[in-house]
Amino acid sequence: MAQTDGFMVAALDEAKKAGERGEVPIGAVVVADGRIVARAGNETRAQKDVTAHAEILAIRRAAEAIGDERLAGADLYVTLEPCTMCAAAISFARIRRLYYGAEDPKGGGVDNGVRFYAQPTCHHAPEVYSGIGETESAGILRDFFNERR
Amino acid sequence: MAQTDGFMVAALDEAKKAGERGEVPIGAVVVADGRIVARAGNETRAQKDVTAHAEILAIRRAAEAIGDERLAGADLYVTLEPCTMCAAAISFARIRRLYYGAEDPKGGGVDNGVRFYAQPTCHHAPEVYSGIGETESAGILRDFFNERR
Repeated sequence: MAQTDGFMVAALDEAKKAGERGEVPIGAVVVADGRIVARAGNETRAQKDVTAHAEILAIRRAAEAIGDERLAGADLYVTLEPCTMCAAAISFARIRRLYYGAEDPKGGGVDNGVRFYAQPTCHHAPEVYSGIGETESAGILRDFFNERR
Repeated sequence: MAQTDGFMVAALDEAKKAGERGEVPIGAVVVADGRIVARAGNETRAQKDVTAHAEILAIRRAAEAIGDERLAGADLYVTLEPCTMCAAAISFARIRRLYYGAEDPKGGGVDNGVRFYAQPTCHHAPEVYSGIGETESAGILRDFFNERR
């Protein structure tokens, strides 16, 4: 298994744990120097905070772990295409590479919607790799919403 | 003085206090039922957190004060046009009206850049009013950056 896949497996694990807590099952990890420095699942319900997306929490925890809010050289793995808010936060954090699982045509802001990294108001764009763990990521989300309907 | 102007004065006061702390001087308040329920200045330096913009902090504090992360019926006043990240967070929080001071052609995401509220991936758009306290807001920012050059 490639290292990249291993990190996405860790993000998928955070997504599953989020789902078990009744949160929309999305997970993320931040990787620096070849190791995971921060993990997070979506916590919008638990924190009663609309901004507590997995990516935002992972970025915040990684900044704390590293002692620097600029995560230059770090990579972020997330199970779903980041929304507009998270796409911008990833840019502000100077994340080097973004790996995401499933695309999100309705709410994504990277390869859908505002396509933030292609805009002149985006001052740092990560390299973007998509489709890693896509099937499992989409499956976790589908099962979660099916159970709730 | 109109009530609207009074709330922007409170946001400008938060901007000035942020500047005094060495933060980029941007301030915000959230108003519900005619009173200020949350105030915040930019705290990206103090919190070593690239997401600690005045709007994000004000939304989080307002959710805590109100006991509901959805701020439907609440209005947000901020001294500068929100960036892409904050524009999306404001949408997620279901803010009713957004009042901002100066436009931000380089980093704004409301009337500049991605114009998030006009996009199909935006599922709630606040009413937007701009230019209130514009001159003072821009002046505070200009003075701050001039002193640092």
